[in-house]
Amino acid sequence: MQDLKNYIDENKDRFIEELFELIRIPSVSSKESHKEDMYKAAEWIKTKLIKEGVDHAEVMETQGHPVVYGEKILNPALPTVLVYGHYDVQPAEPFDLWKSPPFEPEVRDGKIYARGANDDKGQMFMHFKAFEYLLKTNQLPCNVKFMIEGEEEIGSPSLGKFCEDNKEMLKADVILVSDTSMLGPKTPSITTGLRGLAYMEVEVTGPSHDLHSGLYGGAVANPLNVLCQMIASLQDENGRITIPGFYDDVEELSKEEREEMARAPFDMEEFKKHISINDVRGEKGYSTPERTGIRPSLDVNGIWGGYTEKGAKTILPSKAHAKISMRLVPHQESGKIEQLFIKHFEAIAPKSVKVKAEFLHGGEGYVSPTNTVAYQAASKAYETTYGIKPIPVRSGGSIPIISLFEKVLGTKSILMGFGLDSDAIHSPNENYALEQFYKGIETIPHFYKNFVEMSK
Amino acid sequence: MQDLKNYIDENKDRFIEELFELIRIPSVSSKESHKEDMYKAAEWIKTKLIKEGVDHAEVMETQGHPVVYGEKILNPALPTVLVYGHYDVQPAEPFDLWKSPPFEPEVRDGKIYARGANDDKGQMFMHFKAFEYLLKTNQLPCNVKFMIEGEEEIGSPSLGKFCEDNKEMLKADVILVSDTSMLGPKTPSITTGLRGLAYMEVEVTGPSHDLHSGLYGGAVANPLNVLCQMIASLQDENGRITIPGFYDDVEELSKEEREEMARAPFDMEEFKKHISINDVRGEKGYSTPERTGIRPSLDVNGIWGGYTEKGAKTILPSKAHAKISMRLVPHQESGKIEQLFIKHFEAIAPKSVKVKAEFLHGGEGYVSPTNTVAYQAASKAYETTYGIKPIPVRSGGSIPIISLFEKVLGTKSILMGFGLDSDAIHSPNENYALEQFYKGIETIPHFYKNFVEMSK
Repeated sequence: MQDLKNYIDENKDRFIEELFELIRIPSVSSKESHKEDMYKAAEWIKTKLIKEGVDHAEVMETQGHPVVYGEKILNPALPTVLVYGHYDVQPAEPFDLWKSPPFEPEVRDGKIYARGANDDKGQMFMHFKAFEYLLKTNQLPCNVKFMIEGEEEIGSPSLGKFCEDNKEMLKADVILVSDTSMLGPKTPSITTGLRGLAYMEVEVTGPSHDLHSGLYGGAVANPLNVLCQMIASLQDENGRITIPGFYDDVEELSKEEREEMARAPFDMEEFKKHISINDVRGEKGYSTPERTGIRPSLDVNGIWGGYTEKGAKTILPSKAHAKISMRLVPHQESGKIEQLFIKHFEAIAPKSVKVKAEFLHGGEGYVSPTNTVAYQAASKAYETTYGIKPIPVRSGGSIPIISLFEKVLGTKSILMGFGLDSDAIHSPNENYALEQFYKGIETIPHFYKNFVEMSK
Repeated sequence: MQDLKNYIDENKDRFIEELFELIRIPSVSSKESHKEDMYKAAEWIKTKLIKEGVDHAEVMETQGHPVVYGEKILNPALPTVLVYGHYDVQPAEPFDLWKSPPFEPEVRDGKIYARGANDDKGQMFMHFKAFEYLLKTNQLPCNVKFMIEGEEEIGSPSLGKFCEDNKEMLKADVILVSDTSMLGPKTPSITTGLRGLAYMEVEVTGPSHDLHSGLYGGAVANPLNVLCQMIASLQDENGRITIPGFYDDVEELSKEEREEMARAPFDMEEFKKHISINDVRGEKGYSTPERTGIRPSLDVNGIWGGYTEKGAKTILPSKAHAKISMRLVPHQESGKIEQLFIKHFEAIAPKSVKVKAEFLHGGEGYVSPTNTVAYQAASKAYETTYGIKPIPVRSGGSIPIISLFEKVLGTKSILMGFGLDSDAIHSPNENYALEQFYKGIETIPHFYKNFVEMSK
């Protein structure tokens, strides 16, 4: 693949222009108002795949946003790689914190700034360009299938059924995914673990309407105060989650496994500096990488209620709301955690309020062994382009669909991420370094080659 | 005053039409966008006072929204009543909960529905109509001054200086205020106590930008979780406020005083039913009327942070905010409580976050004795129009300016409120019963007459 670097260099501006076309479509899956954009993005991807030379591509309906499927079958006897990605993005709010508009991508200081620049339009598109290269230069060594969905950011509610309904079509030897990060621009890593997720929305209702806080304050339960108390009580002074049964299925890693994990480079001062905090905070007895890698967590993702504009309004509000999500470790089941949460939340509510807790979305954790052909092929690919062996890492993030693929399709995934922790995915000013984008396009063809050779 | 009832009856539709003109001006003092409306409302009041026959009226500038002052001096030797009211209103949000638009008043089932219908445009306007009657029928027994301000709902920040600067002009024997409630439509009462207020806004900052809750959750302090924990810790399991020194100046009432208070009718089932709650909640050891009447309270008036729209966004937000207000009892000083709050809030913040606490507004509580001429004059006036003697009541609300009047002008106030607890002031669908409005206009002239006679 001696022409690979040249090919990227000669076409790099075109790659970016193409990616920008996709980024400009605001395909926010969680918002009804963007429904048309979802189809626009899906059609764009289909057209692009066809142009790049797949035998066949189509926009396939699901119960929610459509999935784009495409395939290039060279020879049924060859191995098959299924590329998974997603064309939907997180909402871009709060808009006023963006230095440039989220859906008008621009390059500053060698980075693409836009919603979806990394997650996952940018990372997904690397696969399109790697495929383009392999096909144009007659070096594609295996069959390739693409499954690009539009509901990853809302928990992939339709993809389970889609996989069930299309098992034969999706048959593959490995699922290749770029939707994760690596440890640093010079420290490649492969994600070998993901956390599961149970995302809840809760509502606490006090009086039937907002009351005057002078006339009633002190005598009537204030749902905001109550919600704060309930949320506070979900964690103890050691940072442990107090929901009964929550830790029942949490695997305690051995001393050896934790020592092995601790070998991954981690710079506490750099970590704190990057996000401007004076101190970290989490479950007692675990290191920062362990707190995100092997331990579950509980975070309030949003809270609202009462008067929130400028100035003072002296009300005792009727309702309080919060979005609360728990990251789960492998073996914790999101459905079970959902039930434990609801039961506990109702149990701790004082009689003076009414509460509702609703499951918004979730999924299971995942652990991938490092002794598979796919892992070794990916490891060697990174080593070729980065010059050093990648480190296996357990990530705190969740891609619920990865465990679902294994369950429904019986296929393992390999997570070749090229994002960086500083990319601000899910945040204002999401970005993706051009260097990472091009390095990804360069690394992926090596994975194909290694995977086919090692599979022999 | 035998023609009083007739006069009201003959002019009642006109009274409402005039009041509606004022209500239609959305004079929301807390919002910059309504600045012009404040002047519109002030000019309207000035014009109205002149039309009704004051010697002189003017819109007087302050550091904030203007004060309307007007006076009718019959004879400097006669007693002088200073009528205080306010033309500003609370914000009307949330608009979607209003059955009719807040600034388009309408009468339904014998009640005026609008923002300001009661608080304080409706109640204030009763005084204008009572004055009109007394003057037109040559029965005005004393001098009258009007001071109508535009900043009551934001804590009257400019009125202290205004009073200081205009002591001579504002000289009076009593200040007459209708900005409170009575116990029921057939149970008149006079407010003899008010709570003070310290209204704070707090901000908790975690990381410098929103983070991905998967990649960081469990290892980085989430400002929403932290804010909930901090707020929860401000009250103990007995509903007592935990801020050190908070209760130092709280007066413990004697057994006799509490027994006297307990004589006021209070129907717990009715109370709960009216606001649709299953149970009350408050400081252990005190009854519901005591919890609002003689005990301080702490309420979260608003809270916000993170992702609050539809669907799920898995962020660990950078910032969390809340508006927290404390109702204070007489002798607690809002300035001292502000300092105690800030000191405590900073002290309980974990090192992993930064906190800011800001005082938005406040004022002192007030207790009025029942053995004054003003109280007796008011009591007799209610007795004349309602047929029964009013009950003295300590209200949970705050009118910070009342204690300020005493301090700066040396004048006691008499709180002749005609609102009802069901009027939903500060809430959507604020309303004011026509019956109460007319009864107020009927009662006020008797107060003037009694006050002058009893002062002799």
